[in-house]
Amino acid sequence: RENEKKDVHSILKDAGFDSIVENDAVIALIGALGGKPGIVVIAGTGSIALGKNENNEIVRAGGWGYILGDEGSGFYIGKNALIYALKEYDRRGKNTILTEMIKQNLKISNTEEVVPMVYSGKITRAGIADLAKLVFKAAKKGDKIASVILNKAGQELGLLAYAVIKRLKFETKDIDMALIGGIFKQKEFLLEPIKSVIPYNINFKEPRFPPVVGAFLMGLEKIDEDILGRLDSEVVKYKLWV
Amino acid sequence: RENEKKDVHSILKDAGFDSIVENDAVIALIGALGGKPGIVVIAGTGSIALGKNENNEIVRAGGWGYILGDEGSGFYIGKNALIYALKEYDRRGKNTILTEMIKQNLKISNTEEVVPMVYSGKITRAGIADLAKLVFKAAKKGDKIASVILNKAGQELGLLAYAVIKRLKFETKDIDMALIGGIFKQKEFLLEPIKSVIPYNINFKEPRFPPVVGAFLMGLEKIDEDILGRLDSEVVKYKLWV
Repeated sequence: RENEKKDVHSILKDAGFDSIVENDAVIALIGALGGKPGIVVIAGTGSIALGKNENNEIVRAGGWGYILGDEGSGFYIGKNALIYALKEYDRRGKNTILTEMIKQNLKISNTEEVVPMVYSGKITRAGIADLAKLVFKAAKKGDKIASVILNKAGQELGLLAYAVIKRLKFETKDIDMALIGGIFKQKEFLLEPIKSVIPYNINFKEPRFPPVVGAFLMGLEKIDEDILGRLDSEVVKYKLWV
Repeated sequence: RENEKKDVHSILKDAGFDSIVENDAVIALIGALGGKPGIVVIAGTGSIALGKNENNEIVRAGGWGYILGDEGSGFYIGKNALIYALKEYDRRGKNTILTEMIKQNLKISNTEEVVPMVYSGKITRAGIADLAKLVFKAAKKGDKIASVILNKAGQELGLLAYAVIKRLKFETKDIDMALIGGIFKQKEFLLEPIKSVIPYNINFKEPRFPPVVGAFLMGLEKIDEDILGRLDSEVVKYKLWV
């Protein structure tokens, strides 16, 4: 069983899932919420949601990798940017400024050139995830397709969180949620879509501590406010870790 | 330029695109419609649409491989079966009999076990595409999720065809369409969704000749009914080639 977990771990790492595999994600959850009940949504190259309720039950949703379930992740957003550019190229889709941004970013003159780049591995999965930044830029400039992609990504992240919330049967309708990962550097495009699919009152919280503190907290027999307060003052200098 | 095409060709072949790369697809188009104007939609492991108008212009849409555009293909259908099984597992999605069918087919006891199988390559892309048959079976039994997947797949195939139709500016609103590939063995689930997204009158035609005859026809200076009629009687014994 433990061996099996290691296999999944290394396979998911190979698939671009750095540090958002279950164990690492639990550490991030405990750190981000200081061991308190709530939800954490992690979205970098991949995506996963975890939660912890009043009974210390922990469940996850998503984290199934780039083929089976990267919903809302950087890879998902970047991949959709490429897909919509190809749809424009095919005249299947609406025009989008993403096409020009991608061509400039990848230094290509014809949209079709992205295809061999992706399948030959010249653009890696991390490279595709990196294209998410273009989508945020395009959305800021008012591009409709970029907004569609980010809106859908936010809803998918919300659905991951909602699956966790349903299963944890929280005693309250007020739920704390922390957002972790590169995708949330520009969370203004994602907060409303996340909320829109969850019929609970979501309080977005800045992650309180980095994952390393989560690991430390998990080692404690009992997490109390005294310890957390002392940690708060100790790790305040790392507040920019997200 | 020719070298470049070869690269794309072999890369797409590696990506599971046997014989639906552009050149091969053109041969299939010419064969299926006997060189006449119309559209062909090819959906096996991958998917692509091609068309030819009265001016002998030929254009394509799709065929961008399993990451960027396998819409409606066997891989797309099989992948969605796995995704919906994992969504049920996460309680993100509705229950579906697909979950049990997949577990039996892959001889696993826990849905989660599909994840390392997919990323380790123990299930290949062709293996994922092969799961499409379960979706057709489930749809026949009235499974809602299976119907959703097939309906969406059909619409995606229709949108590929529609992109081609728009670009070819056919002189008529009556367009012949031939369907090629394993996915269309059970086309009763796909015909209406395909039609639903195309504002033209689509006449579904059985593919008239196999691709090898398409290659022969392409070599002729002029394709006339006389030649086609003689071919009809010659290749009638191969009518089950689709």
